[in-house]
Amino acid sequence: MTDPASPKPLTIVIAPDSFKGSLTAAEAAAAMAFGVRDVVGTAAHIVLCPMADGGEGTLDAIAAVWGVEPRSLTTVNALRRTCTARYGLSADARTGVIEAAESNGLPLMTDVPSEPQRADTFGVGLLARELLDQNVDEILLCIGGSASTDGGTGLLTALGVRFRGATGEQVAPGGAGLSAITSIDVSQLHPRAREVRWRVAVDVNNPLCGPRGAAAVFGPQKGAQPGDVEALDAGLANLAAVVLGATGEDMRDRPGAGAAGGMPATLVPLLAAEMVPGSILVADAVGLPAALAAADLVLTGEGSFDSQSLGGKVVVAVADLAPEGCPVIVVAGRVALSATETRASRITAAFSIAGGPATLDDLQRQAGERVRETTAQAVALFHRAKPVCGL
Amino acid sequence: MTDPASPKPLTIVIAPDSFKGSLTAAEAAAAMAFGVRDVVGTAAHIVLCPMADGGEGTLDAIAAVWGVEPRSLTTVNALRRTCTARYGLSADARTGVIEAAESNGLPLMTDVPSEPQRADTFGVGLLARELLDQNVDEILLCIGGSASTDGGTGLLTALGVRFRGATGEQVAPGGAGLSAITSIDVSQLHPRAREVRWRVAVDVNNPLCGPRGAAAVFGPQKGAQPGDVEALDAGLANLAAVVLGATGEDMRDRPGAGAAGGMPATLVPLLAAEMVPGSILVADAVGLPAALAAADLVLTGEGSFDSQSLGGKVVVAVADLAPEGCPVIVVAGRVALSATETRASRITAAFSIAGGPATLDDLQRQAGERVRETTAQAVALFHRAKPVCGL
Repeated sequence: MTDPASPKPLTIVIAPDSFKGSLTAAEAAAAMAFGVRDVVGTAAHIVLCPMADGGEGTLDAIAAVWGVEPRSLTTVNALRRTCTARYGLSADARTGVIEAAESNGLPLMTDVPSEPQRADTFGVGLLARELLDQNVDEILLCIGGSASTDGGTGLLTALGVRFRGATGEQVAPGGAGLSAITSIDVSQLHPRAREVRWRVAVDVNNPLCGPRGAAAVFGPQKGAQPGDVEALDAGLANLAAVVLGATGEDMRDRPGAGAAGGMPATLVPLLAAEMVPGSILVADAVGLPAALAAADLVLTGEGSFDSQSLGGKVVVAVADLAPEGCPVIVVAGRVALSATETRASRITAAFSIAGGPATLDDLQRQAGERVRETTAQAVALFHRAKPVCGL
Repeated sequence: MTDPASPKPLTIVIAPDSFKGSLTAAEAAAAMAFGVRDVVGTAAHIVLCPMADGGEGTLDAIAAVWGVEPRSLTTVNALRRTCTARYGLSADARTGVIEAAESNGLPLMTDVPSEPQRADTFGVGLLARELLDQNVDEILLCIGGSASTDGGTGLLTALGVRFRGATGEQVAPGGAGLSAITSIDVSQLHPRAREVRWRVAVDVNNPLCGPRGAAAVFGPQKGAQPGDVEALDAGLANLAAVVLGATGEDMRDRPGAGAAGGMPATLVPLLAAEMVPGSILVADAVGLPAALAAADLVLTGEGSFDSQSLGGKVVVAVADLAPEGCPVIVVAGRVALSATETRASRITAAFSIAGGPATLDDLQRQAGERVRETTAQAVALFHRAKPVCGL
């Protein structure tokens, strides 16, 4: 409770996700800030922390909060064809962020026949190597949207690891070579690769192999036919067995190891990478925990606040990080959760930007103005509400 | 500010208008109460004051709060044909309420050719006479929706007044006779007619005569052709002149005298009737001012919260009557006013029941549930909001 004897300005932290189809997180945050200003004028201390969930747009969101422009690097895509990919480097050059799909993403492959067994993460590794060469202390790796199922072997190959077969030869790249691996040679691993802190955004809990594994569940959307799925699944199982022998770490039943073609299967044991929910990775990257510690009110939001929001998405991560007792307001294009469900997720209240009958198209076109208005109405209620002592 | 040292239950006053097309005021209030209970359980003291604006449905709304069933009386319609009309009598039999349109309303005349010059308020007078005979102290008269333009002469005739022409004869009923009036004989006026307090709900500010007068503006919707309008306007002008001579009261330029075919033109000078905004009349009838005096939070609402709401409608009347500093929340089917406009009308915040893209039909079908949910979200924010001392 604020001490009435020592008035100080309200601190309002604004940390929305993007509103898919209408507003980037930065645009949503700006609209919310206007709404706050409409009510409290300049008296409040507003902290803008546009968020992302580790998926598409995360690089832009983090770079925006860092106040840096994403940089570009010539690298290769999942089929090793030259491409340009972006990455982020914090202003103090201590932290780098990679959105893996910038290099090995499926959207980059739409004009060529898919080769699900050949696709790999080598291009992502080139981005990581660039960051290592720039002496970062921490690499944030958002791995969603990948076209590959190589267990992260491509990335590690780019950093100097050699995945060898029975005769000592390097195996073929991509998932296709995984079954032939018998040993892992880390003698030429980039010298900084194990010095930096790796944090990998993982938002699925699929295991590496089997019917819920990387190949079976995500392979088909990468073009894998049933035969491909079988070969990739066997390859990943072999990779895990070899990794277990080499490191003592068993990735076979680790939840989340099946993310992004099994990338965690090598990144975790060989680089000591941590798997973290994407929204937590972003929250840390943009300094949200420290900002929230001083908050009197937190505003967050997203396009659709529904049952999926409760599965580690931005709004719930923000609510979880908010100080005990600090109201958290969700402003969303659509609010599909009841007030009871809303409060069960530690969110105080959720309001749709709809002002009455409206089509999706209406709401998307007017999203900025509606976010501002809805925020203003909610903040006005917060601002005018009297202390409640009797309940 | 509530004293933290002496916790007492919150008092929440719920005073919505009806949601036209979906919920009566009583249904809206009940839905809001459910929403409050969803958040605060049984700890709050909830006061239900479903409201109305003096228009259609006012009798039902007042009777519901009074806990009485409307009574029926055989009377006549605007063309003096027998009909049954309802009226309300408070449980203590001190106050009666008449919705004039129950007797002389336009909807009762749709099956016959309109006779705008003949139509009168005699049937309304029979309802009033019944209340006088029952010894009420106060008569609340909601006059909207009338089919007549008789300056209230029909009503007063039913109470014993005689409007006489040059030769002492009673003039013809309706607007048709007004031009012939030369004197007003109140010798046979009902003995209680001037003892009771008359309050007339008037929500227009049109004058009695002229281009903005009762005949010119409202005559056409009652079937008046240009010739009728001219005759009725001249008749009302003559009535006002005779009234002025008889009472010293000049109703010709009085704002609101043009309501309901000019009824205030005789009710005000001859019966000392007060013209009051409909929502104020209802607020007083249901005890809203006393309820609001103890309120920690006020909830109101209506179908569409828009610029028309600011013209003396229920939500603004409720806000005006709320204690200084007490938050007032509007829950509405549609919120067409900005947060700035909302607060300019002393309403803290307004929220639409729309939870995202939705058609008007969707919202009307789900109105009860959506009112409950939206109320719960808003009350949760009010309830959790911390005291704000820094602004």
